[in-house]
Amino acid sequence: MPETDTASSRAEQRRKTEARILAAASQLFVERGYERTTIRAIAKAAGVDGGLVMHYFGSKRELFQRVTHGRPGPELSGSADQVTEQILARLAEMLASEPVHSLALMRSMLTHPEAAQELREGAALLQAQISRPIPADDADVRAALVSAVWLGVIVSQHLLNSDTLKAASPQQVVDLLRPCLRSLTRADLAPEG
Amino acid sequence: MPETDTASSRAEQRRKTEARILAAASQLFVERGYERTTIRAIAKAAGVDGGLVMHYFGSKRELFQRVTHGRPGPELSGSADQVTEQILARLAEMLASEPVHSLALMRSMLTHPEAAQELREGAALLQAQISRPIPADDADVRAALVSAVWLGVIVSQHLLNSDTLKAASPQQVVDLLRPCLRSLTRADLAPEG
Repeated sequence: MPETDTASSRAEQRRKTEARILAAASQLFVERGYERTTIRAIAKAAGVDGGLVMHYFGSKRELFQRVTHGRPGPELSGSADQVTEQILARLAEMLASEPVHSLALMRSMLTHPEAAQELREGAALLQAQISRPIPADDADVRAALVSAVWLGVIVSQHLLNSDTLKAASPQQVVDLLRPCLRSLTRADLAPEG
Repeated sequence: MPETDTASSRAEQRRKTEARILAAASQLFVERGYERTTIRAIAKAAGVDGGLVMHYFGSKRELFQRVTHGRPGPELSGSADQVTEQILARLAEMLASEPVHSLALMRSMLTHPEAAQELREGAALLQAQISRPIPADDADVRAALVSAVWLGVIVSQHLLNSDTLKAASPQQVVDLLRPCLRSLTRADLAPEG
């Protein structure tokens, strides 16, 4: 085998091993959170040596950052109702699949201060986009509540494993939440009696 | 000093010490969650010896149960709108003060399986009471979403320390959430266009 082939196959091998470690780490961070996940457990799940995990990723902290650093979704834009629909669509996606980046972060948000901080920063960005089209002085509180509703639903379904929510379809959940979120984002509507 | 006085003063002394240990444990469980709270830290915060904590409470696990086992609130009852108002009133209370029982449980719910289980059981009881007056086939999903909204708001305010929610008054938050929760509990309303 020519030398370049060997080199590229070695690079390929390394990519595969890295991917396997990342997948194992993701799963464990989602299931157990940051504190209770060890390099040893990640190595075992990936079928490699603990030293190799450290060699490739440096530390548990860096590995956690790799797992939880998702690209932010496309910016929310348009009218309040359009933004609400974009939020509902994103929520439906997150209910239909297991959003690993977010779940690893959320699993750790209550016990790992850095996860809480990263989540707060992500939430602040999102809240700014949600509040922009809301025509009211209290747009920021309304946006924070939209974000809280979102968090509560994702945590209840994926991390607390609510049987009722798991049995419902993402579409059903989103349809039930639409009027709830609209009441928060349509600030021009008079409150119901 | 007569012997009975000494005995009653010793019992009094013990009650005070137990109360101090419980208060210290509550605060640490709320701040750090179950896993990261040690008997040593509780003893230090209470100004007593670790052995005394074990002598009075048996184990960290039993201490956690003492802290998190709140009496359930009064049963929710009446029409869907009445139940919604009772939920909002309870939420306002939980936003105005730091509900130690609930927060200790919530802080640990994502990393301590027993806390998750206890929270699920509490939520199931509450959801049964919420769904009862909802006149719809999907009453259980609606009730689970009311419970998810509640959880998301409490966690965002007290555990993730949302600046925006902390700056809002409990009354403001409750008034903004009323139409949102009513849209979930008033199943007879046609969805908004």
